[in-house]
Amino acid sequence: MSTSAHSIGIVSAQRALFDTPLVFRSGAVLPRYELVYETYGKLNADKSNAILICHALSGHHHVAGYYADDTKNIGWWDTMIGPGKPIDTDKFFVIGLNNLGGCHGSTGPSTINPATGHAYGASFPLVTVEDWVESQARLADLLGIQQFAAVIGGSLGGMQALQWSLAYPDRVRHVFAIAAAPRLTAQNIAFNDVARSAILTDPDFHGGNFYQHKVVPTRGLRLARMLGHITYLSDDAMADKFGRGLRSGQFKYNYDIEFEIESYLRYQGDKFAIYFDANTYLLMTKALDYFDPAHDFGGDLNKAFSRARADFLVISFSTDWRFSPQRSREIVRPLLHNRRNVGYAEITSAHGHDSFLMQDTYYFDVVRAYLDKVAKECGE
Amino acid sequence: MSTSAHSIGIVSAQRALFDTPLVFRSGAVLPRYELVYETYGKLNADKSNAILICHALSGHHHVAGYYADDTKNIGWWDTMIGPGKPIDTDKFFVIGLNNLGGCHGSTGPSTINPATGHAYGASFPLVTVEDWVESQARLADLLGIQQFAAVIGGSLGGMQALQWSLAYPDRVRHVFAIAAAPRLTAQNIAFNDVARSAILTDPDFHGGNFYQHKVVPTRGLRLARMLGHITYLSDDAMADKFGRGLRSGQFKYNYDIEFEIESYLRYQGDKFAIYFDANTYLLMTKALDYFDPAHDFGGDLNKAFSRARADFLVISFSTDWRFSPQRSREIVRPLLHNRRNVGYAEITSAHGHDSFLMQDTYYFDVVRAYLDKVAKECGE
Repeated sequence: MSTSAHSIGIVSAQRALFDTPLVFRSGAVLPRYELVYETYGKLNADKSNAILICHALSGHHHVAGYYADDTKNIGWWDTMIGPGKPIDTDKFFVIGLNNLGGCHGSTGPSTINPATGHAYGASFPLVTVEDWVESQARLADLLGIQQFAAVIGGSLGGMQALQWSLAYPDRVRHVFAIAAAPRLTAQNIAFNDVARSAILTDPDFHGGNFYQHKVVPTRGLRLARMLGHITYLSDDAMADKFGRGLRSGQFKYNYDIEFEIESYLRYQGDKFAIYFDANTYLLMTKALDYFDPAHDFGGDLNKAFSRARADFLVISFSTDWRFSPQRSREIVRPLLHNRRNVGYAEITSAHGHDSFLMQDTYYFDVVRAYLDKVAKECGE
Repeated sequence: MSTSAHSIGIVSAQRALFDTPLVFRSGAVLPRYELVYETYGKLNADKSNAILICHALSGHHHVAGYYADDTKNIGWWDTMIGPGKPIDTDKFFVIGLNNLGGCHGSTGPSTINPATGHAYGASFPLVTVEDWVESQARLADLLGIQQFAAVIGGSLGGMQALQWSLAYPDRVRHVFAIAAAPRLTAQNIAFNDVARSAILTDPDFHGGNFYQHKVVPTRGLRLARMLGHITYLSDDAMADKFGRGLRSGQFKYNYDIEFEIESYLRYQGDKFAIYFDANTYLLMTKALDYFDPAHDFGGDLNKAFSRARADFLVISFSTDWRFSPQRSREIVRPLLHNRRNVGYAEITSAHGHDSFLMQDTYYFDVVRAYLDKVAKECGE
C-alpha cells in the first residue's frame, strides 16, 4: 500500500434501465431490467481506462468508498481500490455493479415483476455467467465504453472476467482471474447442491415464492452460509483461529454451542440469513455450476480459449481449497497453449479462498505492478 | 485375499442386558441398557484370541456374514473378516456390536424408556467415546474376555480403539486405528455442526422427540448425509466417478438434478433418511467432537498416551481428507514418543475416507501380516 493511498471517500450508487429484452442462455426472456452500479475515478478522453469489477457469490456493486449517509458501509474491496491503491482510481475509471439476479438493487427474484405485481420469485430465469457478461456489455455500451482496460474478478467474478475474453475478445485488453477455476469439479458442485438442497427443502421456501407468504427460508440460507464458510477458510486457518477452543471453558454435553468454531459459523449463518435473498443464492450457485467454457468444445479448454485475445493475470492462493492453485493452473495452461500473454502468481496465504478479499503485500504488489503497466498503455 | 478365503456365512445377532447403572462422562446415568452384538469364530481355551471391532458413525454390529432369513444383508466389513480373510475367523474370535445410543438394536434414543413408556428421544444422554469403551468393557466381561488380542476400528471406530489403550491399558494387546485422528480439528467440528444444525432446525425434529409426533426429520438427515458423503470421497474420486457428467445430457436450467453427482448425493441422502435415527446421528457426531485424549493433559498428546501399553497399527489413506495421513501421524508421534511399538502404513488409494471400507490388496496384506503375528502370540 502506497503511503499516499486513501479511500475514494463518499460514493453513490446509480441505476440504469435496460428495456431491450435480454434473451438468457436458458431461452428465457426478460423484457426489461435495471442494474445498480457505482463508478470511481474518471473516464479519460479516449475512454481507454475503464476497469470492470465482477463480484462473487455474495458480492455487489458497492466495491469501494462509503456512503454519505452510511459512512460505516465500506465497499467490499476498498483495500484494493482507491486513490493510490493497487487498482488506482487516480488512473482508472472503475465500475462495480450488482449482477442481474442479485439482491442488492439490480433486478432479481425479489424484485416486483411489473407484469404481475408480485416478486419474480421462482419465475426469475436462471442466469449464467454468459448472461451476466451480456448484461455487463450493455452497461458498458451505456457508459460509452467500447473496450475495457481490464475486467477483474475473484472466484465467480473471475469466471465472468474469463467469459469477457471469450464473448467479447476485442472489448477487453486485460483479464484478471483471481482465486478462480475454469469450471467446477464434481466436489464443487456437490457442495453447491447441499447448500441449495438446504434452501429448496426449507418449508418456508414455498417453491421460491416465499415473498407472498411473508416468510424467509432462514434455516436453509443459514445452513448454506455455514457450509460456504467452511469452504472459504482453510483447515489451517480454522485451526489457528479457533482450534478446539471451547465457548464456556468446559463441555456442556448438549446441542448448544460448545466450540468457538460453532459459534462463528452460526453467527455467520444467522447474519447472512437476515439480509441475503434465497433465490439469489440459488441462482448464483447454479451460475457457478453451469459455467464451463469448454462445454461447446467437447470439454477441451485449449479449443475454448482459442478465441481469447486479451492478456491475462491469474492469481491463486496456497491454502485455497475451494479453487486451489492447481485449479488456477487449469486456466493458465490453455492460455499458454494459445500463446496468450499470461502472468501467474501463487500467493502464500493462510486464509484459504477468502485470501482474495484480504490485504496482502505480495498479492497487492502483483496487482499494482501489473496495472501500472496497463495505466501506461492508457496514457495515464 | 487368500484363494481359500470365504464368507463366514450365516450369522445371528445376540442381545445382552446390563442392569448395573452406567454413569456417563456427562454425569447422566442410564439404569439399564441392552447391547446387540454378533460373534464370529471360536474363543480359544485361554480366551486370548478375541478381537473387538468398533464401528464408525453409521455402522453397527452386523460386521460379517449374512442372516439366514436375509442373505443379501451382508456385514459391512465382510471383505475383511471371515475364514481365511485378513481378520481370520479361523484364528480369532471376532465381536461386533452396535454402540450404545445407536439405532440398530442397542439401547438408544429411539428405544422405549421403560420409565416413561415413550422413546428416550432428547432425554437420551450424549455418549462419549469413553462411555462406549466402558460399555464395551462390560460386554467383554460378560463374554469372559479379560484381554483382547486386538481392538480394531476405522474413523470414529479408530478413536474407540485408541481409547481402549488408555482406559484399559492391560486389557488390549494390539490396537488398530485406521483412517483415524487423535481428535477433530476445527474444520472437522465445523462439518459436524452444519450436519447437526440441519437436523436440529428441521421442523420435524421437535427437539428430539419426533417419535411421539409420528414424523421423522428426513430433510435434516438427508442434508447431513449428503454433506457427509462429500467428506467421505476424495475430490479426485468424485471427479473420476462423476466429473461434470449430466444426468440428461443437457442443461435444464432449473433446480432439478442436472449433474450426476447431484443424483448420487440426493439418492444417498434419501436412502439414509429412511433408516437412520436422527438422534443417533447427532450423538455420534458429538462423540467425534468431544473425543480428545489430551483434554485432561493440557492438550499434550505425549502425556495422554503415556498410559498406553498396547502395540499399535496405524493405517491412513493417501486421498482421505476427512482424516488425512497427516492426522494419522498425529497418532503415531505420541506413541513413538512413549516408546510404544507402532506400525504405520500409508495406503495409496483413490477412495478418500471411504478407503478404509474398501478392498485393497496392500491394505489387506498389511492387516493380514500384522494379525498373523498376533495369532502366533495366541498360539493359533
